[in-house]
Amino acid sequence: MSKSRVLIAVCAVALSTLAVAHNKEDGAAEYRMGLMSVIGWNFGPLGAMVKGKQPFDAAEFSKRADRIANFSDQLLEGFPKGSDNAEHTASKADIWTNWEDFQGKARDFEREAKALAAVAKNNDEAKDKEQFKKVAETCKSCHEKYKKKD
Amino acid sequence: MSKSRVLIAVCAVALSTLAVAHNKEDGAAEYRMGLMSVIGWNFGPLGAMVKGKQPFDAAEFSKRADRIANFSDQLLEGFPKGSDNAEHTASKADIWTNWEDFQGKARDFEREAKALAAVAKNNDEAKDKEQFKKVAETCKSCHEKYKKKD
Repeated sequence: MSKSRVLIAVCAVALSTLAVAHNKEDGAAEYRMGLMSVIGWNFGPLGAMVKGKQPFDAAEFSKRADRIANFSDQLLEGFPKGSDNAEHTASKADIWTNWEDFQGKARDFEREAKALAAVAKNNDEAKDKEQFKKVAETCKSCHEKYKKKD
Repeated sequence: MSKSRVLIAVCAVALSTLAVAHNKEDGAAEYRMGLMSVIGWNFGPLGAMVKGKQPFDAAEFSKRADRIANFSDQLLEGFPKGSDNAEHTASKADIWTNWEDFQGKARDFEREAKALAAVAKNNDEAKDKEQFKKVAETCKSCHEKYKKKD
């Protein structure tokens, strides 16, 4: 193979790798935004019940708390290194420069969300509300630091 | 109250109801698109393993099949009546005019996805692949009829 052919072949491989990487980044951003929407969809009715805007329904509260707990350990895989370069993302690049801190915050959410799912099985409205607020605090703490303003 | 004031008050209530309904529709569309992204994120590696583009990993296959099974009965609530009017949606209005048929297709997906999660616990690559194809068929059958072309 001539030198120029080798170069073309190497470039083709490099470019296709870059193209895949770019798609992967966009895919990760789409995934994490999708997962946030799904969590928000389930978190909304819990918040409405906690604030008295919707009648408290223990079974509904527990069902949605269970879902959020299930989603909670699926978040981090949506933030692979380099995916701050995705075309559309609400994630600040600080996530990857402060990865340990960000990961800690994601795990705080996971821990409190799983605690909410456990508490919600006991049909105790006051305790549900107390634990709900702890989950909400973990969301807020992370979004304030790592989510771009709308 | 004068007639004009009554009219203004009635219009204000009507408009705020419309505004809420509109937000609810957009919220539902955002939720269902988010859930589709999350399902796709997990379905991708299964497809890659089935097609031999990624080494078969029984534990990974089972983990992602479990997730998809969990999501499968969370789809229908993302299609409330009227949400064909959402600002951004890939859903055809036919969904709501053929609701029974659409609901049947969503339940086909749910049944086959749950069967895949069950099959995947047995670490039998051939059976995993066979059942994966049945799930994929239910996606295709519904998308062809009810999803707008990109």
